[in-house]
Amino acid sequence: MNEIRRDLTELTDTESLALLGSVSLGRIVFTTRALPTVRPVGHILDDGQIVIRSHLGAAIISQTDAKSGSVVAYEADDLDPVRRLGWSVSITGTARILRDTDQVERYRRRLSPWVSDTTDHIIAIHPELIDGFRLTVQRCPDEL
Amino acid sequence: MNEIRRDLTELTDTESLALLGSVSLGRIVFTTRALPTVRPVGHILDDGQIVIRSHLGAAIISQTDAKSGSVVAYEADDLDPVRRLGWSVSITGTARILRDTDQVERYRRRLSPWVSDTTDHIIAIHPELIDGFRLTVQRCPDEL
Repeated sequence: MNEIRRDLTELTDTESLALLGSVSLGRIVFTTRALPTVRPVGHILDDGQIVIRSHLGAAIISQTDAKSGSVVAYEADDLDPVRRLGWSVSITGTARILRDTDQVERYRRRLSPWVSDTTDHIIAIHPELIDGFRLTVQRCPDEL
Repeated sequence: MNEIRRDLTELTDTESLALLGSVSLGRIVFTTRALPTVRPVGHILDDGQIVIRSHLGAAIISQTDAKSGSVVAYEADDLDPVRRLGWSVSITGTARILRDTDQVERYRRRLSPWVSDTTDHIIAIHPELIDGFRLTVQRCPDEL
């Protein structure tokens, strides 16, 4: 009988961003009332930035951070929990609410809202740290 | 033509934990080097606690927090990004590395490792704040 060997392979930044851009759902991590918070959200990758549409804009980016941006994390994955295979990409970066009307309108057309009649914001996240990995499996010959 | 109306329905704590326990994959949020970090991980729900197995134990729970526990967030979901339907549950709670040998061994049998030959820890997260929602859709008659 062969043993199964499971490995975690680190991905390059380029591979990681390409995978993140290949899916449309991720999770944003931010701080609210001094506590870590995480919410799922739809995204697109545009010009190296992760762009999301969320009614939590005011919570993600506090008034004091409006100019400098807020530090957030963002994660997307495609993992099979039964076979324990797939990939995950996590980034840490700076999030800003976009205000340019044309730009906002363009992104609104590409990011469908999840909830009707809510006030939402378009937020761009500039990735500063990128961590991606892929889980792989191989069958090894029995050791003697 | 009918319009589609999309709503977000808040779930009770009981409903939220039941849904979280119905899946085996989530994302843990912790702070490493003063930055928010998020990683996917397998979990089980046992006795109201989320139990995970991770080689990032030392990063999730710093040495200084070993006794009091570390504040983390945890999220699991089952969302269809195309139809924009499904549910998500996020909790904020206290994470502790379990040390009791029998207890650790029991959880190790229930939580398969994702990577071979890594030193990992069994971590229990006690949920303190629970936020769950379900996305729903309905067709509305046209307004006159």
